[in-house]
Order: sequence, then C-alpha cells, then structure tokens
Amino acid sequence: MDRLTIIKVGGKVVENTESLNMLLDQFKRISGYKMLIHGGGSTATLIAEKLGIKTQMVEGRRITDEATLDVVTMVYGGLINKKIVAGLQARNCNALGLTGADLSLVRARKRPVQTVDYGFVGDVEEVNSRELRLLLAENVVPVVAPITHDGKGMLLNTNADTMAAEIAADLAAFFNVFLFYCFEKKGVLSNPEDENSAIFEMNYAEFESCKTQGVVSSGMIPKLENAFLAKKRGVKEVLITNAENIANGRGTRIL
Amino acid sequence: MDRLTIIKVGGKVVENTESLNMLLDQFKRISGYKMLIHGGGSTATLIAEKLGIKTQMVEGRRITDEATLDVVTMVYGGLINKKIVAGLQARNCNALGLTGADLSLVRARKRPVQTVDYGFVGDVEEVNSRELRLLLAENVVPVVAPITHDGKGMLLNTNADTMAAEIAADLAAFFNVFLFYCFEKKGVLSNPEDENSAIFEMNYAEFESCKTQGVVSSGMIPKLENAFLAKKRGVKEVLITNAENIANGRGTRIL
Repeated sequence: MDRLTIIKVGGKVVENTESLNMLLDQFKRISGYKMLIHGGGSTATLIAEKLGIKTQMVEGRRITDEATLDVVTMVYGGLINKKIVAGLQARNCNALGLTGADLSLVRARKRPVQTVDYGFVGDVEEVNSRELRLLLAENVVPVVAPITHDGKGMLLNTNADTMAAEIAADLAAFFNVFLFYCFEKKGVLSNPEDENSAIFEMNYAEFESCKTQGVVSSGMIPKLENAFLAKKRGVKEVLITNAENIANGRGTRIL
Repeated sequence: MDRLTIIKVGGKVVENTESLNMLLDQFKRISGYKMLIHGGGSTATLIAEKLGIKTQMVEGRRITDEATLDVVTMVYGGLINKKIVAGLQARNCNALGLTGADLSLVRARKRPVQTVDYGFVGDVEEVNSRELRLLLAENVVPVVAPITHDGKGMLLNTNADTMAAEIAADLAAFFNVFLFYCFEKKGVLSNPEDENSAIFEMNYAEFESCKTQGVVSSGMIPKLENAFLAKKRGVKEVLITNAENIANGRGTRIL
C-alpha cells in the first residue's frame, strides 16, 4: 500500500501568517500522498465577539448555537480553509478545501442533549472517502475543515482531532497512513515545565499513568484518546509533534 | 458529447432559506451532469457592516480591501457555499463546494489600478477543469463560490457572472454546455414595468439596441455581456431566466 501522510494542525499554527507559512513549507516537503486537517478556534472566537455572539466553552468544547454555527462555518470552511488552499497552490500543491459536507466526506449526528446541550455539534457516524481517494490518486491535496453534516441539510461543528482520527482510520484500509497531531510542543512532555522532555513513545498504560499523575494536561487528554483510537483502528503510525517536525517525523510515537 | 447544465444564481436566491430550498428542489430535477455557481453579495455587505467594515461599490462592483476580502472569502466560500452543499447532499446530489483556488479551478490576476482601485479583485486568466471533469464523471455536483486566486498565495474577489461564463466556455470543449443565468425576472423584459414581457430570444444587435433605448438596466448589461461572451466561446445554449424555470428551460435565449 502507498503511504498517506495526514497532518492535523491546530488553530494557533494556521491563524498566524508566519507560522502558517512555516507549516506549509514543511508540508510541501512531505513526499507521497498527503492531506491536512485544520482547526481555527481562536479566529472563530474573535469573529464571533466582533459580531456580538457570545462564545461559551464546556470542557474545551464550543457550545454551538445557530449563530455560532454560521461563524464556524464561515471561519473554518471559508476564511482559514481557503487561505491554506491558496498557500498550498502557491507551493505547487494542488489543494482542495473541503468540509465533511463536501462529497459527504464525514456524516455526523447532532449530539444528544445529556447533562450539557452542545447545540449544533456533530458526532461522527460515517466517513466516505471514495471520491477523496480518486482525487489523491491525481495528486490532489485535500484540506479539511472541521465541519460535518447530518445528511438532512444541517451542518454541524465537529472536533478537528476527532475528524482526523476518523478519516485516518477509514483511509487505513487503502493506505499506510501516517497521522501527525501537531500542537505547540515537540511531543508529549514527561515534565510539563521542560520543553525538551518529549517522550519518544507512549503506550496506553503509560498514558493512563500520565493521566493519574497529572503529567498530561486536560487539553491533551482528548487529543491522545483520538491518537490511540486511530492507532487501534489500523493507522500505521500516529505521532504527536509540532509543525516544525512534520517533514522529519520526530515526536511522540503512539504505540 | 454529454450535456452539462451550469446554473449561475445570484445572492438574492441563495441567501433566503425559502428561495434557496426552491432553487435546490428545481436544481435536483435537472438531469445529466450539472453544476452551480453562486453569489452572496447582500450577506457579505451585512456581515461586513456588523464587523465595522465599510462597503464601497463602484458601478455595481465591490471595492475589495484586505478586510473585505476576508469577509467575502468567509461568506461566499464558507457560509453560503456550505449551506448549499449541505442542502444538495440532503437531496442526494453529491455536492462539492469550491472556490477558484481549489484545484486551481480559476486563476486570476489582481486588476490593475486605472481610474478606480478595486483592491483585491481578480480578472480571470485561466480555467483548469481537469480534476473537475473527473469529478463530474463520478456524478459529483460542483458548487462554485466567486473567489479566485493568483497562484502566488493571494485570494481574489471575482464577479460570479464572469466566473460562470469563463468556466462554461472552458467546459464547452468537453460537454454540450447549457448555461442559465438566474435572476429575479423570467428573462430579459421588453417592458421593464411588465413582468410577463420576457423576450423569447435576443441577438447581439438587439442587445445593443436595447442598451441604446435603455430597456436593459445597468445591472443587466454586464450579465448580458457575459452571456454573449459565453455563447460566442462555444457554450451551446445560454439562457437568462429565474430559479423557478431552470428545470424546464424557459427564459430569454441568447443567440
């Protein structure tokens, strides 16, 4: 099977022109089939604020009312996605921006209200990569924004880490998938105070013990859960790293 | 050659939920290959206003400074485009939203400053429909927002009527293209006061004479110029009509 590299990158990297350019320069260096999945939360919060829409977060997740859904659709699917696409085209990568609604790439279900009503937030139900695979074969570089749809006309806001894990797991049946979760650090740090303490590799038992010891912070926990899920579902390699290291493949390897 | 129907629809139709649903219901009824190109000017103006960005128009064209470019990218490429895509997916049309930057579908050049500085407005240089044709063959329905790119990383704002004419002309080498320009009227009216006076067909000499007599209004002139251009460049049929008539093909036929 051919190699496919999937890069998940957070809002902080893509929202700043300088770090975006660094990311795209690194991304261009990756050989073989590749795709990018991005966030954009800070810009969404900023635009929402300017539009007089209050942002409400519960455990790091955005409560998505109708007005907020419009904002994330605009910001993730429009502003950020198309800037990345234009930046990749300038680097001779034939990028195609998508949300989960496009080509019905990711169909989701509105999260049922339990203790918290997240609003228009979608939990992934099905990935359809058929047309995406035809495009990859033509050396198209998909750039995916974290918006999904329910198949009945409703757009939904879905966590980008989760989308990356689900898309990677689906594509693992067709490619040797290398999934990189990029954030600000060089990997999972054994000592949160020491930037150079990135762990070389981590298994699930070590992750559990890190959680107990409080070594992995609350924001990292769902990211690592997604990373382990992807690995369990057949993704060949899952790495936690920063944007500087995507081309050379350094970071914390998930076992 | 197979038939390909291209529908250009203005902001007024797609910005209102009821008229959008009517459009998509009609669009669903079109048989054969099809695609949709949309505007979204009123929403862009509204969002810009809420964000404290002043809208400036010259002869019906939006002056596009950097802040306005972000707004049109968000609104056309994100909000409106993805709502249409989700609506088509709900109707079993496998829609894919695109701007001209995606797959480098439409490359443009920033308009040189002459008497007016339009800012980040792009004049079309090249259409690349290669990947789009592969997708059409898979029954994908492209939905195009009027944003282009310059190939050097810059997004540009391009008139949707012009994009429709250029894309239709390019695809005319591969398909029997039927291009419908939809607006609020049933066609070009011989008497602007009478909604039922739509002209059955119009040649360029008649158009010139209508211009002289002031029968076609200022906003209609660039639309008709694009329509005649598309026809001249090999598009099989060009019709001026409203959204209600796209499935039955009634309207003013361009000769």
